[in-house]
Amino acid sequence: MSFEYTLKKKCKDTKARLGELSTPHGKIETPIFMPVGTKATVKTMTPEELREINSQIILSNTYHLYLRPGHDLIEEAGGLHKFMNWDRPILTDSGGFQVFSLSDMNKITEEGVEFKSHIDGSKHFISPEKSIEIQTALGADIMMAFDECPPYPADREYVKKSLEMTTRWLERCIKAKTRDDQALFGIMQGGMYKDLREESAKQIVEFDLPGYAIGGLSVGEPKELMIEVLDYAPDFLPENKPRYLMGVGTPFDLFEGVMRGIDMFDCVFPTRVARNGLVFTSQGRVTVRNATYERDFTPLDHDCDCYVCKNYTRAYIRHLIKQNEILGVRLTTYHNLHFLLDMMENIRKAIAEDRFLEYRAEFYERYGLEV
Amino acid sequence: MSFEYTLKKKCKDTKARLGELSTPHGKIETPIFMPVGTKATVKTMTPEELREINSQIILSNTYHLYLRPGHDLIEEAGGLHKFMNWDRPILTDSGGFQVFSLSDMNKITEEGVEFKSHIDGSKHFISPEKSIEIQTALGADIMMAFDECPPYPADREYVKKSLEMTTRWLERCIKAKTRDDQALFGIMQGGMYKDLREESAKQIVEFDLPGYAIGGLSVGEPKELMIEVLDYAPDFLPENKPRYLMGVGTPFDLFEGVMRGIDMFDCVFPTRVARNGLVFTSQGRVTVRNATYERDFTPLDHDCDCYVCKNYTRAYIRHLIKQNEILGVRLTTYHNLHFLLDMMENIRKAIAEDRFLEYRAEFYERYGLEV
Repeated sequence: MSFEYTLKKKCKDTKARLGELSTPHGKIETPIFMPVGTKATVKTMTPEELREINSQIILSNTYHLYLRPGHDLIEEAGGLHKFMNWDRPILTDSGGFQVFSLSDMNKITEEGVEFKSHIDGSKHFISPEKSIEIQTALGADIMMAFDECPPYPADREYVKKSLEMTTRWLERCIKAKTRDDQALFGIMQGGMYKDLREESAKQIVEFDLPGYAIGGLSVGEPKELMIEVLDYAPDFLPENKPRYLMGVGTPFDLFEGVMRGIDMFDCVFPTRVARNGLVFTSQGRVTVRNATYERDFTPLDHDCDCYVCKNYTRAYIRHLIKQNEILGVRLTTYHNLHFLLDMMENIRKAIAEDRFLEYRAEFYERYGLEV
Repeated sequence: MSFEYTLKKKCKDTKARLGELSTPHGKIETPIFMPVGTKATVKTMTPEELREINSQIILSNTYHLYLRPGHDLIEEAGGLHKFMNWDRPILTDSGGFQVFSLSDMNKITEEGVEFKSHIDGSKHFISPEKSIEIQTALGADIMMAFDECPPYPADREYVKKSLEMTTRWLERCIKAKTRDDQALFGIMQGGMYKDLREESAKQIVEFDLPGYAIGGLSVGEPKELMIEVLDYAPDFLPENKPRYLMGVGTPFDLFEGVMRGIDMFDCVFPTRVARNGLVFTSQGRVTVRNATYERDFTPLDHDCDCYVCKNYTRAYIRHLIKQNEILGVRLTTYHNLHFLLDMMENIRKAIAEDRFLEYRAEFYERYGLEV
C-alpha cells in the first residue's frame, strides 16, 4: 500500500504548504493537528465526536499501550483501530520519548533502553526492534522510528553521538518493519545545533522514507530557540515528503510551524488545559473556572459555532468544572479540539488562497499575540 | 397549565398500569424511570445522549443546586431547563432527604430544618416555604413537597408525629407555591406501619394534588419489608393520579414496584455503579472491571443494540475503566441508563399487551432473579 504525499501548493511569501497524505485508512489534508489519544482514547471524546470536529488522524502512545493493556491484547482485538473503534488514520510514536521522560529509571545503550515502568516499577527493555514489534501489533498507519531525544540543554558532543545512534536505530527499525500497510517515519535530532540538524537530516533522508519528523523540540528550551531551529530545520528535509513537528501544539506554535514548512503536529496541550478549565477563544485564552465567569451566560467563544458554544454558557461550564462533573471536561475538551482543528482548516484555506500571512495577522490580533 | 394524568390501561392479573402525564415540557409515558442529574447534569451524559436513549424526564436535586451554584444563579440563567440545555420535563426533589442524609448536622423543628453544608460547613435553614422558593427558581415541571423522612428503624410514635408534621409542611408548601406551570406532588410517609401509611395517605390526598409520592422506603430496611409496604401503600393513593416511588431503581425494584401500581421511579444506582464498572446485562450484572473480561472481545450485552454495545468490547471498556479514562464511565453509564429505560419501555409494551407477568418471568429467568 502506498503512502503518497502530494504537495498541492506552496503559499506565496512563506514556506507554508498545502498537501495531501494518503494512508490505508484515508487521506489527510495537511497542515494538520493530530489530537492525542494516549491510552487508546482521546481523553473524554468518542470517535463520533472526533469525526464531528473533523479529526483526520489521531496519535496514540506506544509506551502507554505497551504497559497497559499490552500490545498483544490490542493485536488480539484486531489492532488499535478496531480496539478503540476509530477507522480513520492513526499514528503511533515509538515510545522513546516517554521512556526518557516518564519512566523511573532508564539506561541507554547501543542496544536499546532499559527502564522501570512508571506504574509499578517493573523492568522493561525497548530496542528499535521491540518498538517496531509493538507498533506492528498496534497496527497504526504511521509508525515512528525509535530515537533518542536528548534533553535540553545537552552539549554538542552528546547530541552528535546521540543523533548518530538514532540513525543506526532507524536502520534497525527499517529492517524490523514487516507490514506493507504501515509507513515508518524517521526522526531528525541534532538539538539546538544547526550543523547537527543538517547532519541528522542527511543521514535519515538517505533511507528515502515516506515522511520525516523533527524531534527534540519543545523539550524545555526557550520559545525563541525553538523558533530559531524551525527557521532552518525543515529545509533540511525533502520537499516531497510530509514534515512532522513532534509534541508541539499551541495556536502560536502551529502558525509558526506552518509558516516554516511543517505539515503535521500533535500535542496534549489543548486537551490537558481543557481539563483544568482553560479554553481557547477567538479573543484569546479564557480560564472558565475563574469567578469572573460565575454569571456569564454567554458561550465560551462568541465567534464559534461548535456544539458546545451553540448549547452551553460559561456559567454552566464553570459550574460543572468546579463540581468535578465529567460533562464539564467533556465540553471544554470538545471545544478546544474543535478550535484548533477549525483553525488548521482556516490555515489550509488561507494557504490555498495565498493569504496565510494575512490570516495569521488577523488571528494574532484578535487572540492577543504579537506577530 | 394542566398536569393531566390519564390512566390508559390496567394490566390483567396485576396492579401494573399504563398512563400518560402531561407537563409543560411534554408528555411522559408511565411507568417510567427518571435518570438523576443531581448537580444539573446526569453524570457523564449530554442532553442529546439522554434523548438518544429516550429519557422522558430527569430528576435534579434541590439541596445540591441550592448550595452550588445557587438557585438564584440558575433563575438568572433562565431556569434549570435553560441552564443545563434540557427541554424535556424535570422533577426536583424538595431537598429534605439530602438535608437529613448528607448535611453534617441538622436540627428539625416545626418551622423547618437547620443544617450545615456538607461542602464547607456553612449554616443554612430550609423550611417548606424555602424549599418551594428554591424549586420555583429552578423552575422544574414537577416540584416535591418538603417532608421529613424518618430513618429506619424508627418507632411508631416518632413516625406518627413525623407524618403529621409532613402534612402540615405540605399545606405550607401548597400556600407557598406561585407558578401555574409547576406541579406540586405530596409525599406519603408512615414508615413500615400500615395504618400510618394509610393515615398519611388520607391526609395528603385531601389536598387533591396532581401526583403523590411514596417516601421513606429504600432507607436501609430489608428488601422484604420494602416489598411488604409496597403491597399495600400504593392502594391508599387515588387511582387517577401518578404514583412515584422515591429513590428506588434496581431492575428488581422497578418490576416489583410496577407490579404494585407504581408509575414513576428515580435512583442514582444505575449511574453510580456504572462508574465502578458494574453494568446491567440481559444475563444479569457484569463487573466489567474484573480480570475475567481482560480479553473478552464481545459487547457488554449480546442482546443489546445500544450505541455502546454496537461499537465497543468488554476488553476495551475494562481497559478504559482500569485506566480511569473518562470514556470508560461514559460508556458504562450510557449503557446502564439505556438498559433501564429500554426495560421500562418493554414493561409498558407488556402491560399494553396484558403480559406483564410473562415479561417479568422471562426477564428474571435470564437476569438470574427469583420470581
